[in-house]
Amino acid sequence: MAIELKLTAVAGIPAVRPGDDVAELLLSALDAAGLVLDDGDVLVVAQKVVSKAEGRLVELATVEPSERALQVAQETDKDARLVELILQESEEISRMARGVLIVRHRLGFTSANAGIDRSNVEQDGQGETVLLLPLDPDGSAEQIRRTIDERKGVRVGVVISDSHGRPFRLGTIGVAIGVAGIPALWDRRGEADLHGYLLQHTDVGIADEIAAAAGLLMGQGAEGLPVVLVRGLDLPGMEGRATDLVRPKEIDLYRG
Amino acid sequence: MAIELKLTAVAGIPAVRPGDDVAELLLSALDAAGLVLDDGDVLVVAQKVVSKAEGRLVELATVEPSERALQVAQETDKDARLVELILQESEEISRMARGVLIVRHRLGFTSANAGIDRSNVEQDGQGETVLLLPLDPDGSAEQIRRTIDERKGVRVGVVISDSHGRPFRLGTIGVAIGVAGIPALWDRRGEADLHGYLLQHTDVGIADEIAAAAGLLMGQGAEGLPVVLVRGLDLPGMEGRATDLVRPKEIDLYRG
Repeated sequence: MAIELKLTAVAGIPAVRPGDDVAELLLSALDAAGLVLDDGDVLVVAQKVVSKAEGRLVELATVEPSERALQVAQETDKDARLVELILQESEEISRMARGVLIVRHRLGFTSANAGIDRSNVEQDGQGETVLLLPLDPDGSAEQIRRTIDERKGVRVGVVISDSHGRPFRLGTIGVAIGVAGIPALWDRRGEADLHGYLLQHTDVGIADEIAAAAGLLMGQGAEGLPVVLVRGLDLPGMEGRATDLVRPKEIDLYRG
Repeated sequence: MAIELKLTAVAGIPAVRPGDDVAELLLSALDAAGLVLDDGDVLVVAQKVVSKAEGRLVELATVEPSERALQVAQETDKDARLVELILQESEEISRMARGVLIVRHRLGFTSANAGIDRSNVEQDGQGETVLLLPLDPDGSAEQIRRTIDERKGVRVGVVISDSHGRPFRLGTIGVAIGVAGIPALWDRRGEADLHGYLLQHTDVGIADEIAAAAGLLMGQGAEGLPVVLVRGLDLPGMEGRATDLVRPKEIDLYRG
């Protein structure tokens, strides 16, 4: 493992518009900040940047809520059009209560409101707009990784991050919803520990730790620093995907 | 928020013995590494260092399992003496199955085996020894913080970290089980976001993000780098405790 790790929030990412090339935005901002990418660097990109570039904005006025959405909206006291989008993005409702709608997202992870929110989305005066998660964040991460490799000849890792609430613990933390170029889950079972014992159950959620670390710099509000460069990680060469981090329901003994 | 964050794994922490002064060990290792602490630095210390110094080692041969422990041991296929210790450290069993015992620890958080394990514990030939979590990790963190303040006149934050598995997601990540000198949970509700909207549900699990970041350097096996210095955080002055991060059962709608 590395013994020094440097995280740099990359300033100068402009307001992102549908159709923007995220890799290009990143490279320009890095250039402007005087940062030169190196093999092994990892770029953590807040999902909002990717979602906006991919045009995942939806005007609520254009959404027709289904019967089911109207029902859930009543139970949760939420906007039925927003609920409609949440249901479209989800496999199933995990829990609901007044003000709370926690779902298993179609991407496999469990989160509030299917990751859809209104914050940091510009309102255009035409009505309220919300932002959905990228269609395929692992694919988006891979595209960014590949584009950077093609244009700069460097092999970086890419993590697309979001903030999730959690069972058992209060507070949101950064998690990885898209991964490319690095392992998501680092299976260290079988490695001997200091005293020669075999480690057990030590798959490390390495991409989540990276996303959480980047979360320290990104903030979530007025700072607007949606890109963090992580330098100094010493990861195994294997590549993973964020979906590796989804715990299959059948083996989820942590659920109470 | 900071725009650059540096994490340094502090080498040279010796094998820890019961009765050792953790703050002194840290200061010596920092000295030897040429690192000078500054106000605002945060030291992340793996719980094993603190637990060992506090003499939380138990020889399994000295443990007499209760009826209940024998029962649970049979159901989980675990050593009954280990199960006895796990039960003593827990408020309740959350889930059990063959090879799995997940409990609500007396400190409030939910984890496998109450944080007790055998890895990285020296075996003295007299029998197997296991290591329990510190009695009061928040208190331990505060004591380290205060001692460093007294001896060096610097105001640092201290996080005592452990690795936890999680519901919904595979892979362990570093979490904070003891906190001093910094907030554990950063309540940012009510702050305006970029576009003037009010953020909702944005308590940030800042101490957990710090512990996860440090986990990237600590590794869990042969590396043996149980202390990480985090420099460059720009946190609000308020102080919290790791127990702030425990989600009360009544409001834990994330649980499936």
